[in-house]
Amino acid sequence: MAGSTYGKNFTVTTWGESHGKALGAVIDGCPAGLPLSEGSIQVFLDRRRPGFSPLSTPRKESDLCEILSGVFEGKTTGTPIMIMVRNTDQISKDYSAIASLYRPGHADYTFDAKYGFRDHRGGGRSSGRETIGRVMGGAIASLILNELGIHIHAVVTSDLKEVPEQDSIGGVITCTIKGLPAGVGEPVFDKLDAKLAAACMSIGAVKAIEIGDGTKVASMKGSENNDAFDVDESGHIFTKTNHCGGILGGMSTGGDVVVKAYIKPTPSISCRQQTVTKEGTPTTISVGGRHDVCIAPRAAVVVEAMCAMTVLDLLYENMHARMDRFCSFYAKE
Amino acid sequence: MAGSTYGKNFTVTTWGESHGKALGAVIDGCPAGLPLSEGSIQVFLDRRRPGFSPLSTPRKESDLCEILSGVFEGKTTGTPIMIMVRNTDQISKDYSAIASLYRPGHADYTFDAKYGFRDHRGGGRSSGRETIGRVMGGAIASLILNELGIHIHAVVTSDLKEVPEQDSIGGVITCTIKGLPAGVGEPVFDKLDAKLAAACMSIGAVKAIEIGDGTKVASMKGSENNDAFDVDESGHIFTKTNHCGGILGGMSTGGDVVVKAYIKPTPSISCRQQTVTKEGTPTTISVGGRHDVCIAPRAAVVVEAMCAMTVLDLLYENMHARMDRFCSFYAKE
Amino acid sequence: MAGSTYGKNFTVTTWGESHGKALGAVIDGCPAGLPLSEGSIQVFLDRRRPGFSPLSTPRKESDLCEILSGVFEGKTTGTPIMIMVRNTDQISKDYSAIASLYRPGHADYTFDAKYGFRDHRGGGRSSGRETIGRVMGGAIASLILNELGIHIHAVVTSDLKEVPEQDSIGGVITCTIKGLPAGVGEPVFDKLDAKLAAACMSIGAVKAIEIGDGTKVASMKGSENNDAFDVDESGHIFTKTNHCGGILGGMSTGGDVVVKAYIKPTPSISCRQQTVTKEGTPTTISVGGRHDVCIAPRAAVVVEAMCAMTVLDLLYENMHARMDRFCSFYAKE
Amino acid sequence: MAGSTYGKNFTVTTWGESHGKALGAVIDGCPAGLPLSEGSIQVFLDRRRPGFSPLSTPRKESDLCEILSGVFEGKTTGTPIMIMVRNTDQISKDYSAIASLYRPGHADYTFDAKYGFRDHRGGGRSSGRETIGRVMGGAIASLILNELGIHIHAVVTSDLKEVPEQDSIGGVITCTIKGLPAGVGEPVFDKLDAKLAAACMSIGAVKAIEIGDGTKVASMKGSENNDAFDVDESGHIFTKTNHCGGILGGMSTGGDVVVKAYIKPTPSISCRQQTVTKEGTPTTISVGGRHDVCIAPRAAVVVEAMCAMTVLDLLYENMHARMDRFCSFYAKE
Repeated sequence: MAGSTYGKNFTVTTWGESHGKALGAVIDGCPAGLPLSEGSIQVFLDRRRPGFSPLSTPRKESDLCEILSGVFEGKTTGTPIMIMVRNTDQISKDYSAIASLYRPGHADYTFDAKYGFRDHRGGGRSSGRETIGRVMGGAIASLILNELGIHIHAVVTSDLKEVPEQDSIGGVITCTIKGLPAGVGEPVFDKLDAKLAAACMSIGAVKAIEIGDGTKVASMKGSENNDAFDVDESGHIFTKTNHCGGILGGMSTGGDVVVKAYIKPTPSISCRQQTVTKEGTPTTISVGGRHDVCIAPRAAVVVEAMCAMTVLDLLYENMHARMDRFCSFYAKE
Repeated sequence: MAGSTYGKNFTVTTWGESHGKALGAVIDGCPAGLPLSEGSIQVFLDRRRPGFSPLSTPRKESDLCEILSGVFEGKTTGTPIMIMVRNTDQISKDYSAIASLYRPGHADYTFDAKYGFRDHRGGGRSSGRETIGRVMGGAIASLILNELGIHIHAVVTSDLKEVPEQDSIGGVITCTIKGLPAGVGEPVFDKLDAKLAAACMSIGAVKAIEIGDGTKVASMKGSENNDAFDVDESGHIFTKTNHCGGILGGMSTGGDVVVKAYIKPTPSISCRQQTVTKEGTPTTISVGGRHDVCIAPRAAVVVEAMCAMTVLDLLYENMHARMDRFCSFYAKE
Repeated sequence: MAGSTYGKNFTVTTWGESHGKALGAVIDGCPAGLPLSEGSIQVFLDRRRPGFSPLSTPRKESDLCEILSGVFEGKTTGTPIMIMVRNTDQISKDYSAIASLYRPGHADYTFDAKYGFRDHRGGGRSSGRETIGRVMGGAIASLILNELGIHIHAVVTSDLKEVPEQDSIGGVITCTIKGLPAGVGEPVFDKLDAKLAAACMSIGAVKAIEIGDGTKVASMKGSENNDAFDVDESGHIFTKTNHCGGILGGMSTGGDVVVKAYIKPTPSISCRQQTVTKEGTPTTISVGGRHDVCIAPRAAVVVEAMCAMTVLDLLYENMHARMDRFCSFYAKE
Repeated sequence: MAGSTYGKNFTVTTWGESHGKALGAVIDGCPAGLPLSEGSIQVFLDRRRPGFSPLSTPRKESDLCEILSGVFEGKTTGTPIMIMVRNTDQISKDYSAIASLYRPGHADYTFDAKYGFRDHRGGGRSSGRETIGRVMGGAIASLILNELGIHIHAVVTSDLKEVPEQDSIGGVITCTIKGLPAGVGEPVFDKLDAKLAAACMSIGAVKAIEIGDGTKVASMKGSENNDAFDVDESGHIFTKTNHCGGILGGMSTGGDVVVKAYIKPTPSISCRQQTVTKEGTPTTISVGGRHDVCIAPRAAVVVEAMCAMTVLDLLYENMHARMDRFCSFYAKE
């Protein structure tokens, strides 16, 4: 897979730039028979839309999605699902002034270093609008997971404090995955926690990931950090505490999986900053345009999406872990 | 790839259980012409060996490696390199008592849930000895990176304080990657930070990953977190500070890449803990055997290994990012 | 990768059904800086269009493509390229009669067996129109290869003889790849011939693949089949004959690579055939609708496309085969 | 995956050179609970051994395998299985004379072109002994498939006629896969026939692949090539003929899958041939050493192995094709 495809068996390929014609995703590996419509996906997309929170950019995008393949008579066919959102509120002139310099904290410089040039409008492929494709893929994954009784919910758990004018703040998103059966995740390199870390860290602006007690484990003792096992009346084994965040040895315990993503403050601020032009001449910049003061509220649904796609892909892979269940699956045929 | 292979173009497949006959790795995608010998790999393996630090397990393993393929007349041939270490100091009877119950904080329960049964001796595939294969792969990757002037160094940066008897403590490992050119990493899902996060989180006992300022970004303002750009006398662009940890938009900036891995305290402690048997009967356990009081000192070389393999794989992928450099590569032929 | 993505580093994800809203492809891993426009891709798409040959279906589709991402100011940016063709000449009623039975030679039955139901209109995802996405990906790959002096050309090499009414015939396509440097292909499993075989066999209706002398090798002697080596005035080594079809040990020799694809006759014929309904009741069918008498003429550009994508992906992978060239690539930075 | 790993979810990584210390494979993705021992694998390996047929090389290798990981108390644990065979009958001096020239029909030249140098002894990684790892992986896949009632059998179907002294002949292997349920294979690019073609073409010396009627389809009419559907007394749908070779639209029909591999004559012949030295000086060569007159008899088990691994990997991927079966799998938990 190249960098724009996520997943091994349930794959989501995103495409589109902030100021291009459209953005979207191709979702492959979705089982046939899932009821699906634009409406069921729009619910998820609306949660990432700008223009509805005081902390969000005033830019208006309807972001109405359209399904162009993979659905027939209201259900998925098992073939790739292409979903698209047209860009309608592009103001390219907001960005022309910065085409020739590097905005601090953004990917302008690294993109140029990698490719030799870049689409400078609105962050191009690095724009937050790239998350539209992720949310589409995550929407479908979530709908499938719900059928298994697995639910994923992410909320902002940091204080969104007062922000001085012309500046921005960071935030924390805590995502909980409930109902995941035990044993999901592949030792050694495709561990559930490793994949969730990559999934969430791949979201722009994320700079740290925690599982369960996270950074606190470094100063804990084993007697404090270990989760004792117990059994309930129906014989179901569970952990009495959840310091491990629902994951042991890279596999789910059956308890709640708890992931935290730490988001840096929006780099686009209007206060004046030191930088350089593409030719390497020192200069300063005040980033205009319409930007979020804090990205975290809009990123919660993106964190859910990434976790959903990750979990589903591992649920697929888990199906052939045991001879008895593998053979029994095909015995039915 | 199944869970035991890491990487896309530079791949490392590890194998072996703690109390099996041997452990090792198959490294594929190593370029031909790299000088390689058991000695050059042994240097790395010796850094993870137990028995040399007061915080490490007294278990003695010589861990002498043997190369069985992929090297001819002292240089790699470009074909897969199989390296092996024989287990020589196995005491299986240490573990027989715990074959039928679940040790808190370990993968016993999750392994059983996934596979239906497990090799209970010494943690089986979940054992810290599984990192031998990782260090072998990382050794080769590091040797290649050194040829490009890229150096990776990990150290324990937490205090290794007093530990009460029968208990254990966690730790923090900080890994710095120097000399990485700008632009390495693949937007959108194969970002350098996402891959490093997965790589390090896949190491047993890691519960949090930070890039640069890490969790601190959540309470910073944009004006504090952004790294201003500047240019030196030779025209080279760099960031004046390094809050971003050397990564912007998922690609390297050319500055030092800084990753932190937070390690939980060793779950194997001899103080008595509550748990259950495989049948679900409540019981207690005091884990005997020979275990590390703190894993972090021995894990540093493993963190380096994972980072080295990740960086090399992305350096491969970066080679076809631009038409001019791609065409020029083949023009020489 | 799920079944709709082709390639490892240069990837093409196709989507769309014959009677859905549109079809297309997302091409990822294209280097930045390649001049690209709808026009340059349309040239390739026009070669697979129906309606222009006495042997083709009279169905008319303009198949005008639109690029929605990945191109800025006339050149590729290195980000995913989404290209789309809208379906405009769909006659769904042609197919309603056959929704409940299985057409012989088609994927109706196997699709139902796999997914439980299918989009029966015009063959759904199994339709020849699915090749539109392949040709888009192959067009871009071909444009890149041309920059390296590599050219791919496929022609029908079987006789297109008289066909009785209500019937169809098969054909042979021979594809030649010129200008490929020696050494391209990855022993052991990603051999150039193995990948070309998979690439061409994945095209609907292909039932056999030959490399060089193909099936004839089985009755040849070593003294007849071996290609002797020789050297020209500039010191360039080459094979005097080309029984091997330009590939030895799974890697290119530097000579012409010759691949043949054997295409079965179009299954959709109007003469009456025995079959069963979905419920398993014997019945007969005469397939109406507008179908090709022989697919081979339209499939030639598809064979070229698959070969182009395969060769480019392996050229990427070949870049890190040798330490000297790998280090030299990064020394320039 | 780099070139030495086969498969996506059931993966086999082979390693080792003809004259290195050993050869083997790491098999990952094998379900836990399969009874496995050296004996059950040795049965397969013995079928490829030299020294037992008048057409085979007189070289003697015991090829006794040893399992070093992934098996506990006689059953697979779900963790990677490392199996090894030590090389014991190496005569390196047989090859010293040819270290500096290119043998016609072999990979000597292409290896040098790719890597800059090669292990010239006995064909190095290109040697037929590389198939040992494939047979190991195929053995395990076959044992699993047998549990599902799927059986794979390959035989030589060409005439092994008289061979003049100092020469060699080619051959044909026909492999039949029985008992495969319908619907296995992933449209569009991971079709069952495409994957089988790649699998078999990746075996050294294979130059053509046929599915069902193979090359004959090119001159057939649709009315001759289509397989009519019928239904038996128990309501099971089947094809009355099998021109399609058990595959339609890239998925299994439930009938016998028939694959043919065309093997070229052994390139190593002792009659004198024209060639060049590595420096490009014309010369001649008579290849000594101990070589097969016809590879086909020994390659049959290798073809079975490749088909088994391919089919198993696709059976894994097929498990999540339908919502009803996917949900039902996890409902049992």
